[in-house]
Order: sequence, then C-alpha cells, then structure tokens
Amino acid sequence: MPPSSADGPERPRARGAYAKGIARRQEILDRAIEVFATRGADRTSLRAIASEVGVTHAALTHYFGSLEELLVAVYRESNAPGRHPEARDDATPVESMILSARVNREVPGLVQLYSALVASALEEGHPAAREFATDRFARLRASIAATVRQQQREGRIRDDADPEAVAALVIAASDGLQTQWLLDPDAPQHEALTLLDRLLRPTSGAEPRPPEDDRA
Amino acid sequence: MPPSSADGPERPRARGAYAKGIARRQEILDRAIEVFATRGADRTSLRAIASEVGVTHAALTHYFGSLEELLVAVYRESNAPGRHPEARDDATPVESMILSARVNREVPGLVQLYSALVASALEEGHPAAREFATDRFARLRASIAATVRQQQREGRIRDDADPEAVAALVIAASDGLQTQWLLDPDAPQHEALTLLDRLLRPTSGAEPRPPEDDRA
Repeated sequence: MPPSSADGPERPRARGAYAKGIARRQEILDRAIEVFATRGADRTSLRAIASEVGVTHAALTHYFGSLEELLVAVYRESNAPGRHPEARDDATPVESMILSARVNREVPGLVQLYSALVASALEEGHPAAREFATDRFARLRASIAATVRQQQREGRIRDDADPEAVAALVIAASDGLQTQWLLDPDAPQHEALTLLDRLLRPTSGAEPRPPEDDRA
Repeated sequence: MPPSSADGPERPRARGAYAKGIARRQEILDRAIEVFATRGADRTSLRAIASEVGVTHAALTHYFGSLEELLVAVYRESNAPGRHPEARDDATPVESMILSARVNREVPGLVQLYSALVASALEEGHPAAREFATDRFARLRASIAATVRQQQREGRIRDDADPEAVAALVIAASDGLQTQWLLDPDAPQHEALTLLDRLLRPTSGAEPRPPEDDRA
C-alpha cells in the first residue's frame, strides 16, 4: 500500500531525510494549491496538474499516495484556518457562507476541485474522496449546529428551528448555490443566501425598513 | 462530429430504418435507465454500463453520439413527466422536493448519475453535461419562481421573498441535502427540507400548535 500522508503524521525516518521530505511535500502542496487557485474552473487533468506543479507522477505518488489524496490535501490546506483572515467570529453561519462565496469567486479552480471531490465521493472506488467529504459534512454540521445553538440563546437565530436541520440546510444551500453560480454567473446566489439568513432571524423575516418608511 | 440525438430530432432516413432506429434507441435508453435505477450508487463505469445494457460501444456511439450524451438522455428520460405520478399540482416547491427526495431514495444510481453529470458540467470538455445542467437549472428556477409567484398571490408562500431567490434556494437545498444524505443516511435531509418549507410560509414559521396547547 502506498504511504498516505493525508491520513496522519508521516512515520519518522532519518531526521535529515524526514525534514527534507516534509519540506518537499509542502512545496508540492503549495505549488498545487497555486495551480488550482489561479486556473479557471477548467478540466482538472491529473497529468496536466503534475506537469504544472513540476513534479513527476512518481513523486506525487511518493508524497501523497495517490492523485486523489493530493487533491484532498490541496483542498484541505487551501481551506485551512488562517487562509481566510476575514472570517468574523460573530457572523451567523449564513453570513460566513456569504463571505466564503465571495472569496471563492476568486478561485473557481478550487471550487471546481471541491465539486469534483464530492462527486467522486459518491462513487465507489474513491476512498480518500469519500472519507474527505463524509468527514467534512459531519464536522461542518456539528460545528454549525453548535454556533446555531449559541446564537439561538443570544436571540440572533430563531429558536423554533432544530440546530442540526439548520446546519444541514445552510451547508446544502451554500454548496448548491455555488454550483448554480459556476454554471450561470447570473444565478441569484447572493440573493438566495441573504434570503436564507433573513428567514433564520428571530424577527421571522419582515423586511428591515428604514424608520422614515411609513408604508402600512 | 458524431450525431447527437440528444440535441434534437434525428435526421430523417429511409422510413423503415428510421422507425427501427428510433425503436432501438429507445430500447437502449430504457435498458440503461433500468441499469441505473436498480444499481446502487456505485461507480459508473461506462464500459460496465454498455456491458450491462447489452450493447456495443459502437452502438452507443451510433445512437447517442457519446456516452456522456447517453447519460444525459438517461437522466432526462428517467425524470420525464409521467414517471412521477405522485406529484401534486398544489404542492409548494419544497413539498415537491420532499416528494422527489423520497422517490430518489429508491434509485440511488440515478441520484449518483445526476451528481456526476453536474460535476462534469463544471469541467471543461463536457459540453453535453454542461448544456444539460445549465439548461436544467435555468428551466427549474424559472418554473419554480412562477409557482412561487402564484402561491404568494394565494397567500401560501410569504410575499416578502423574491421568487427567483426562493427558487434558487429551494433547488440548492434539495441538491445539497441529497448529497449529504447519500454520504450519510443519518443526515437530516427530511428535517432540513421541512424546515425550509415552514420558513417560507406566510405565518413566518411559528411552530403550528394544536388549539388545546396553551403555552405562552
């Protein structure tokens, strides 16, 4: 079985070789992220990626186990904390998704990579993609549900909605709207997300109106 | 360029050969739908499909132009009106999605096919999948927005929500929740859809309470 760096820390080797290996792995990863972030949402040919990253297929296999595992690592690393410095701690879950959507518009290659990983996860024979997607959805649902519970206590999200259902809905809406937007830039991605944010507020979604507005 | 039956009516040939060709094409299509509907959500190997359908790759190419076009035809035909006799005319858009989700649970192979087509549509080099997905989203958004407008007039959907945004949101939620459910049968797909249905009702989503319930 090829080594799988994505599944955990690498096994220790000779100290010098180990440090060098780690550095080389990170170098490949950084270059792959750059390739994805700067390319359009065009076809992800594995051979083309290896060529653009400037490594041999053998090196990719050595450091990542498989191309699929490299792709998972690219997506994970490109979404690691610290890469999105604008995220606000007090944002509602949908506000965070709106921010992500804005950031993602600049990196359609990474969005396309995400879609491809999720689609692969739904097929047999893609264990790394399946583990990535299943794990991502489970973690994200748990994390968002915790935020929803907290914000329900603070009166910022309506308290008659089940936090787990809200979390699944928010993730689904965000993913699905991103897909619609990639296929059609006129799809009302932002409008639909702000609508969902409003629907989840405790005011039950009456349009906020300026004080001077005296419509009935 | 191979003929593309999916793009429009076939060119007329000798009458007998034409009728026979139509019948053979439909036979292949029906068999392919059966293969997808009865298989699990496992890997869609094109060669395996051709083999299960019982046609040669040459015949697939002759009748459908390409495997991608066959897959689009399979999905379109399996979702053609009449294949879902339970659909109610007076259902809200989310209620229709809840019904679809129930039907789709019985045919994970078709759901996986849909995901694969949409993921392909996001990559370059898949014109049939891209046309299918772009067209499907545009038509579905327009159709659902029209229903939303009608149901807003009838007081069944809150009238402070933009119909286009509602349509995009409902489709996104439905697609995204289906993906989460395929990866994890415990994902709250049904709960999230019923929540969305409730949020879009004009009552602004207070939990319906029985008359004898006298909680404050």
